[in-house]
Amino acid sequence: MIVNGVGREIPAFIDGYKSIVPYVTPHGREPEKFKTRPHTGKMLPGEDKLLPDLETAIRECGLEDGMTLSFHHHFRNGDRVANMVLEKVARMGFKGLKIALSSIFPVHAPLVDHVKSGVVGGISCNYMLGPVAEAMSAGRFPFTVVFRTHGGRDRAIEAGEEQIDIAFVAASAADRAGNFNGISGPSACGSLGYCLTDCRYARKVVVITDHIEPYPLIPASADETLVDYVVMVDRAGDPAGITTGAVKDEKDLLRLKLASWAADVIEAAGLLKEGVSFQTGTGGASLAATRFLREKMKKIEISGSFGMGGITGQMAALLEEGYFKALLDTQSFDQAAIESLRSNPRHQEISASRYANPHNKGCAVNSLDAMILSAIEVDTGFNVNVHTASDGRVMGGSGGHADTAAGSRLSVVAAPSVRKNIPIVIDRVLTVTTPGATVDCLVTERGIAVNPLRKDLEDSIRAAGLPVVDIEDLKNKVEKETGGQQKPFLVSRIVAVVEYRDGTVLDIIRAIS
Amino acid sequence: MIVNGVGREIPAFIDGYKSIVPYVTPHGREPEKFKTRPHTGKMLPGEDKLLPDLETAIRECGLEDGMTLSFHHHFRNGDRVANMVLEKVARMGFKGLKIALSSIFPVHAPLVDHVKSGVVGGISCNYMLGPVAEAMSAGRFPFTVVFRTHGGRDRAIEAGEEQIDIAFVAASAADRAGNFNGISGPSACGSLGYCLTDCRYARKVVVITDHIEPYPLIPASADETLVDYVVMVDRAGDPAGITTGAVKDEKDLLRLKLASWAADVIEAAGLLKEGVSFQTGTGGASLAATRFLREKMKKIEISGSFGMGGITGQMAALLEEGYFKALLDTQSFDQAAIESLRSNPRHQEISASRYANPHNKGCAVNSLDAMILSAIEVDTGFNVNVHTASDGRVMGGSGGHADTAAGSRLSVVAAPSVRKNIPIVIDRVLTVTTPGATVDCLVTERGIAVNPLRKDLEDSIRAAGLPVVDIEDLKNKVEKETGGQQKPFLVSRIVAVVEYRDGTVLDIIRAIS
Repeated sequence: MIVNGVGREIPAFIDGYKSIVPYVTPHGREPEKFKTRPHTGKMLPGEDKLLPDLETAIRECGLEDGMTLSFHHHFRNGDRVANMVLEKVARMGFKGLKIALSSIFPVHAPLVDHVKSGVVGGISCNYMLGPVAEAMSAGRFPFTVVFRTHGGRDRAIEAGEEQIDIAFVAASAADRAGNFNGISGPSACGSLGYCLTDCRYARKVVVITDHIEPYPLIPASADETLVDYVVMVDRAGDPAGITTGAVKDEKDLLRLKLASWAADVIEAAGLLKEGVSFQTGTGGASLAATRFLREKMKKIEISGSFGMGGITGQMAALLEEGYFKALLDTQSFDQAAIESLRSNPRHQEISASRYANPHNKGCAVNSLDAMILSAIEVDTGFNVNVHTASDGRVMGGSGGHADTAAGSRLSVVAAPSVRKNIPIVIDRVLTVTTPGATVDCLVTERGIAVNPLRKDLEDSIRAAGLPVVDIEDLKNKVEKETGGQQKPFLVSRIVAVVEYRDGTVLDIIRAIS
Repeated sequence: MIVNGVGREIPAFIDGYKSIVPYVTPHGREPEKFKTRPHTGKMLPGEDKLLPDLETAIRECGLEDGMTLSFHHHFRNGDRVANMVLEKVARMGFKGLKIALSSIFPVHAPLVDHVKSGVVGGISCNYMLGPVAEAMSAGRFPFTVVFRTHGGRDRAIEAGEEQIDIAFVAASAADRAGNFNGISGPSACGSLGYCLTDCRYARKVVVITDHIEPYPLIPASADETLVDYVVMVDRAGDPAGITTGAVKDEKDLLRLKLASWAADVIEAAGLLKEGVSFQTGTGGASLAATRFLREKMKKIEISGSFGMGGITGQMAALLEEGYFKALLDTQSFDQAAIESLRSNPRHQEISASRYANPHNKGCAVNSLDAMILSAIEVDTGFNVNVHTASDGRVMGGSGGHADTAAGSRLSVVAAPSVRKNIPIVIDRVLTVTTPGATVDCLVTERGIAVNPLRKDLEDSIRAAGLPVVDIEDLKNKVEKETGGQQKPFLVSRIVAVVEYRDGTVLDIIRAIS
């Protein structure tokens, strides 16, 4: 066992996982000198990439047992491509395939049976919710799942740690040369930011679409130089499934309070000036916080530089109204965001690598002024857990959580201190998603706890008249009220590894029994 | 000596040049399985890429003697960056630097002295005109220049054959994170298509600009993930220099005749139908041909799919008028083209790799219906020379000539059979730029010679009532009229290698004495 930089005991060896590098500090790990080598190709004039069906594409790609297939989650719970491909490869008799799917949703329930039947022999993702998460938490997978961040996934692909044999792209439109995007056609889903690095490094790339346009499709999220085959299907995905789950616009008073204070903290930190940039996420408190920030910007007559991340219609409206000069979009969360990406040239699709890969010559999270983050648990070391519930079940993952916390000048976690009598502020989070060293403060309904690393911020918040609380006091109050930390539960073997964005191991997740 | 696929004697070894692979057929060479490895990077939040001056950037990049510096030619004869950097590295005392400059113009005359003083010890380019070409042809360079095509240059970079230590980008606008483009700012030059692959594979990338915008600059031709440093200078380039040289709009009767017949050939070949795509270049006959094609399209009421290449205002007008649905632009040739790229989302910047790298999974030239090409000489094997004049002096290079000939369904060379009593149609071109196997026909004022490989085309052209001539007859007539092929001249050692787009050796160029 090794104790890593967030105090977690990490085994020296985990079955099926590459050699372990323990996490030390947020920016400590140096990259290798080079990325891995992209694949060449050759296409003669007159050759056509449009194949008659998925099975032909799979055969042409030379799929073999044990290879890695990648997918992306822009359709979220409306995704069809991962299930479609897995059903096909199962029928074709392949076994032991590794699945690199950026985020896993309830719609991906069939994955559980594909694991059971041996078709799937490995999973990596940045987020996991629903039956797949439940099966994994129950210890029903005979392999160790790898959790990454959005930036960390692209870093791992570029570093050659995640080697993709075939990347399947669910595109709402393509041309026969392979140029594709997510904004044209009847199944538009918006940005395709999470599959672009897959396309650049995968051995083979198959675009699955329900809408073919004449060459050249414009814009091209990724272009013909990277795509091997195009397959036409009835529906590439269900845009109605995008909004399920992640996006909430709840207006209860608690959330409004958190949101209001989070916005106040950003102002108190002196960041609310001409050119401010922020990302707020899609939780209820985050959406409300965006509204409060808008009001503040209006009042003091400033405009921001850019908003980023998963983009909602609310952010698109801020762009239209001039509160932002640009949006950088890895994923579009609703129809209004999709329409904005389609029609406003200042709303730009970016890859997850540009968004947050720490081993690039730069990434966009480094230019973020403020980030408002959610939490399932926060501990007195300001470590945040968005992976596991208090009973140990996996119900999420980092996504861009750890990426934006590390990159932004100010990371504000907004969370109630207690949820349904379950303590949220505790001694030690069950799973470390985001190291406390990258979290500047925690906004709760009981007041704002500031990371001792940010004494300057504490002073500013106090000066602004906001209620500052000590995190230990906060934890003690919560403990008293709820009768202590969550109920104990038994855990058994390791079912998942939580990688930090730089590929070091932040934590492990065990099966619950 | 090896005799290659266009009948040229190629030595088995050329001093300073990588191991020779002789050209065999246009699409014969298979790529290696992988491209070379891109460089990683690391930038901490709060770090700034804007350096105080060029010298600091050169030092920060760790320049050493013998390294390779790359430049691009979007400002053409108005380029300032290559001269600026070379003057600086000369003062700093560096020696033996290799210069990978996509095209060399008269403005680059100082290169001659930098070679003489030993600062520069190697040159590669796709085109060369002016004092540098004269010095090279005179045998004054102590190294062998490498000529590539636009697609071939990017292929060589991606294959690791052209390894760039520092890529210098002349950008009309950038932000401090390194996002840059060529359409914003006072020195806008349009597309930056020839430096994008440099940025992806160079060890270090320095953006030189005279206009800094707040983050994030939109659009970004290449983004912050690829750029190490940004340097602000008085002027990044002189847009007035773009139009010199290449773009001609001459209206003499001979050119009009060639242009008219070239357009007729495209129609006769059955390509002039809904969705037609073409590239016409910037020569006088090409511009006139575009006008004829426009008239034909208007008459038969069709619209094309896309125009490509170096884009002129004429092509931009075709987009505006609906004759094209899209433009794919590697280089913008005038202010109207720059404005179109800036304002029309259907006018897209593409990299030279997407344009024409044959070792991608696809490239745009493969979707071209018709290409109208110029020629300095054409021989009875339909081989075309756009490198050397009849006296042996270098006065050009392939650019996209060989790329588009290989990719397009129909490649039409339009050239007079005689120029100033110098025969153009001859037995054997002095230098093979483009193999005859990729040239479908030659339009001259004496009629149209069709490559025997395209019997189908000859039939169509005859059926359309166009004057077909036999290329041997044509050559004989020209010979008779001019008194034979050009005057003999003495040549000495090899001064340049002409690479085909796939990296095989097509020809060599010798010094003239």
